[in-house]
Amino acid sequence: MAKLIVLYPRPTDVDAFEKAYVEEHEPLVAEKLPTARLVATRIVGAPRGEPPFYRMAELHFDSMEELQRAAASEGGIATARHAIKMSTGGPVVFMIGE
Amino acid sequence: MAKLIVLYPRPTDVDAFEKAYVEEHEPLVAEKLPTARLVATRIVGAPRGEPPFYRMAELHFDSMEELQRAAASEGGIATARHAIKMSTGGPVVFMIGE
Repeated sequence: MAKLIVLYPRPTDVDAFEKAYVEEHEPLVAEKLPTARLVATRIVGAPRGEPPFYRMAELHFDSMEELQRAAASEGGIATARHAIKMSTGGPVVFMIGE
Repeated sequence: MAKLIVLYPRPTDVDAFEKAYVEEHEPLVAEKLPTARLVATRIVGAPRGEPPFYRMAELHFDSMEELQRAAASEGGIATARHAIKMSTGGPVVFMIGE
């Protein structure tokens, strides 16, 4: 199992971000990355202080090969671009985990 | 469902960190936080550049109330202290997600 982890810093306009995330981004992931299973997490706080991120998305793939293939595909690149465009709070963090 | 997300920056000594993580920290989580289900992820790369974190741990709880109770418990505090002590690459990030 492999997963692509996406961390979004807190956006400047949370409501606009949420709307774009649910109405645009999640359908885009479903359409463009059909072999990924998305687990979306909203960060609601931290034990101390402010959390550095506002949302995390985990895209699970059956294998590292499939993750790499999907991430490098036209649909994967379009989805990543949309994530970057949506993130008004700072650079999106993309990481590959196993 | 609620989860506590723990992000470790890349440690100064990866082998020592891995040994401490597997031999000390994971058993501590199992002992001190029996209501948590741990999903441990090793970050192996990023689509571009170096990933800012080396490991992620997700502790899943049945409810936000149970997460809060466990995090504030003596065992929860001891486990968090151990995580902080183990992290030689910079401050550990703790976040609460739903």
